[in-house]
Amino acid sequence: MLYMVHMQVNIPDTLPKAEVDRLKAQEKAYAQKLQHEGTWRHLWRIAGQYANYSVFDAAGNDELHDILSSLPLYPYMSISVTPLAQHPSAIAAN
Amino acid sequence: MLYMVHMQVNIPDTLPKAEVDRLKAQEKAYAQKLQHEGTWRHLWRIAGQYANYSVFDAAGNDELHDILSSLPLYPYMSISVTPLAQHPSAIAAN
Amino acid sequence: MLYMVHMQVNIPDTLPKAEVDRLKAQEKAYAQKLQHEGTWRHLWRIAGQYANYSVFDAAGNDELHDILSSLPLYPYMSISVTPLAQHPSAIAAN
Amino acid sequence: MLYMVHMQVNIPDTLPKAEVDRLKAQEKAYAQKLQHEGTWRHLWRIAGQYANYSVFDAAGNDELHDILSSLPLYPYMSISVTPLAQHPSAIAAN
Amino acid sequence: MLYMVHMQVNIPDTLPKAEVDRLKAQEKAYAQKLQHEGTWRHLWRIAGQYANYSVFDAAGNDELHDILSSLPLYPYMSISVTPLAQHPSAIAAN
Amino acid sequence: MLYMVHMQVNIPDTLPKAEVDRLKAQEKAYAQKLQHEGTWRHLWRIAGQYANYSVFDAAGNDELHDILSSLPLYPYMSISVTPLAQHPSAIAAN
Amino acid sequence: MLYMVHMQVNIPDTLPKAEVDRLKAQEKAYAQKLQHEGTWRHLWRIAGQYANYSVFDAAGNDELHDILSSLPLYPYMSISVTPLAQHPSAIAAN
Amino acid sequence: MLYMVHMQVNIPDTLPKAEVDRLKAQEKAYAQKLQHEGTWRHLWRIAGQYANYSVFDAAGNDELHDILSSLPLYPYMSISVTPLAQHPSAIAAN
Amino acid sequence: MLYMVHMQVNIPDTLPKAEVDRLKAQEKAYAQKLQHEGTWRHLWRIAGQYANYSVFDAAGNDELHDILSSLPLYPYMSISVTPLAQHPSAIAAN
Amino acid sequence: MLYMVHMQVNIPDTLPKAEVDRLKAQEKAYAQKLQHEGTWRHLWRIAGQYANYSVFDAAGNDELHDILSSLPLYPYMSISVTPLAQHPSAIAAN
Repeated sequence: MLYMVHMQVNIPDTLPKAEVDRLKAQEKAYAQKLQHEGTWRHLWRIAGQYANYSVFDAAGNDELHDILSSLPLYPYMSISVTPLAQHPSAIAAN
Repeated sequence: MLYMVHMQVNIPDTLPKAEVDRLKAQEKAYAQKLQHEGTWRHLWRIAGQYANYSVFDAAGNDELHDILSSLPLYPYMSISVTPLAQHPSAIAAN
Repeated sequence: MLYMVHMQVNIPDTLPKAEVDRLKAQEKAYAQKLQHEGTWRHLWRIAGQYANYSVFDAAGNDELHDILSSLPLYPYMSISVTPLAQHPSAIAAN
Repeated sequence: MLYMVHMQVNIPDTLPKAEVDRLKAQEKAYAQKLQHEGTWRHLWRIAGQYANYSVFDAAGNDELHDILSSLPLYPYMSISVTPLAQHPSAIAAN
Repeated sequence: MLYMVHMQVNIPDTLPKAEVDRLKAQEKAYAQKLQHEGTWRHLWRIAGQYANYSVFDAAGNDELHDILSSLPLYPYMSISVTPLAQHPSAIAAN
Repeated sequence: MLYMVHMQVNIPDTLPKAEVDRLKAQEKAYAQKLQHEGTWRHLWRIAGQYANYSVFDAAGNDELHDILSSLPLYPYMSISVTPLAQHPSAIAAN
Repeated sequence: MLYMVHMQVNIPDTLPKAEVDRLKAQEKAYAQKLQHEGTWRHLWRIAGQYANYSVFDAAGNDELHDILSSLPLYPYMSISVTPLAQHPSAIAAN
Repeated sequence: MLYMVHMQVNIPDTLPKAEVDRLKAQEKAYAQKLQHEGTWRHLWRIAGQYANYSVFDAAGNDELHDILSSLPLYPYMSISVTPLAQHPSAIAAN
Repeated sequence: MLYMVHMQVNIPDTLPKAEVDRLKAQEKAYAQKLQHEGTWRHLWRIAGQYANYSVFDAAGNDELHDILSSLPLYPYMSISVTPLAQHPSAIAAN
Repeated sequence: MLYMVHMQVNIPDTLPKAEVDRLKAQEKAYAQKLQHEGTWRHLWRIAGQYANYSVFDAAGNDELHDILSSLPLYPYMSISVTPLAQHPSAIAAN
């Protein structure tokens, strides 16, 4: 089942650079693992912002929440989730 | 180049049903043609709303505007466009 | 799977009273049928407004959309959907 | 009497981890006690957010305020309260 | 129990004047009846707007909703309800 | 003359507890003095929030500003003021 | 006593032109009468909008409401009122 | 002097097509005349919307208002104006 | 040329009191100098807020920006500027 | 291809002055280099704000993002990007 997820990242500048770099590296590894598994289906950078639109394919709301709340940068994110359904004009199944 | 497009449809109830059905049929044909051509890459229904999230692959802003403003339901739509860029953690190229 | 759904009803006063009454009766029958089936788990009136908070238990986003878009008053509703997950402090399973 | 309560938690990252863990443990115990008593009737996690929708059954506004303002995490919460009434189409009494 | 209620009135100019005058007269009679009964405790005009702040003393959310939804002008109102509790610094009981 | 005043209190958690307690005690004393004088006519807690709705009876805007800006917690408040007038359906004079 | 008043005019295009012209002429006469009397102290057009910022000098909230609600175009206006006080750095008294 | 102007066009679908076409033709002629005169310095279509960003070079606020309020489509526009100044890093004078 | 300027002041409580007092004194002197020169034409306190509405008479946008960005408290201000034009019903020239 | 970019700068006052000056100098050099190259086509200060409207001519969304995210002040900016297309009434090509 698909969800559109908008993530805005706001890392406070009080966080030590080493900690930030560590979190970012973990975030990238985590994101790429989920993409390879097909759960994180799309990941696009919003031009000009430290934000992204992503599409997740999760079994349900609980799995989605586990995935998102496990993001290393989760404590520094504003996240909104929009549940997606099959559009009657879409030629591809979700 | 990819764009995230949010479309909210608001058809006034003063429009005759025949006209609405005609527009919807044209809209579906147009949307499916563009999907087959690869321009309208993703089309997802927002659950619970007469709205969708779509991803378009257009040569640029002008082509995107031509595509969107040619939508049969365009006069009855609120549209917002977010330009997307390659995310450094994305394993797939845009 | 649970979804929190906020529904605001705005019936244009240009709609004939007979039509409005017909739609409202259909809406009530439809809502009660779904409640008896367990799909429409909770339905609460927001005090002072022609609006409600409802909790739906649907198999997924697509089923939820089918349910909501089949509401007789759907064309006159502003709907927002919030996917719910299990809260770690909740003593009851969702 | 039922109230829909939306709680958004924003714990400043300047708070020591031990203090945060202590507060979270207290919050969980408090929440589960009230659920067992039937006051905190529903507690759902909003997928993707450190937020929840809850339904409280309180004798009135004052009791509700006492309950909410006694939440250990109360100082770090943005809370909105919506009073709920019986919906004419609801098959279950509130 | 007290509720702060904000009412914004928007009467469409398509409504015949006679109907508007009839509704306004009914509204005034209804409002004054409830004030005499002590339910509608305060009614203040917001300077410069066809809107008011009112304080209602109702047994609970359901009674409040019945009162508000019975307002003759209810179909033409945007209403928001804020539940009030006893303030620790208030010298008067609610 | 009456004013509806909405006060949202946001005390930064960097402020020492002793200072906060001192300010709160001053605030209570000040509020109760003004209530006894009839200037601070109503003071209600918004259920679930560190906020209140108050009604002030002041000679005019300047007096109101002096009263509000003298609140011990004033530096930590977001305040909005709505001037109130006599409602034509109110049975009591303002 | 001074009030900052923002007026946004939205005349529905269903209103006959003759009626609109009549209202506008009345509005102008009314506005100029109040300016000559010193009540309507300032009247400025917001560049690019059918809106204005005005400063009124009224005895109090009730007089202000009477003035504003007597505007011929009042039914087609969105009005917000901000009570003004003497600024400590102002060299001129309000 | 430069102004950034955002124009959103909302032509009601109750307006006869002939009238709409007439207004659009006038609008285009008027816009091109002002561009040739150098007053309407830039005119860009916002991709996906019946809206534009424009930059005007006007002698001052009054001239700008005259220009904008003379737009044939002015009655059907939502306009916001942002005054622009010389940026210290700009290599070109405004 | 006239501009309506809304200034909201937010001085962080981390700033030493001596520095705040120094800035405020400079701000007052600067504001009064400009008022005497006729540039800062009106300065009104918004009742209940550390904010003001001011009207500036500046040669143009650049001069206005220089004036505002030279305010001692400028770094701690949220400012919005609305360009004003002559209102056709105003009896006084701007 | 053109993009309208709105940049709001919020430099935390906890950042040492020397660091701020260094960043500002880098920002200016970077901005002027891009202007000379024709990428940063327009740069206007918003009167009264530490913000600007800019127009960029970039090959596409990715190039735009690289340009913006390389701004020395990028971490302290709120940026919104609006893709621009050719307006049918514009006499100049984008």
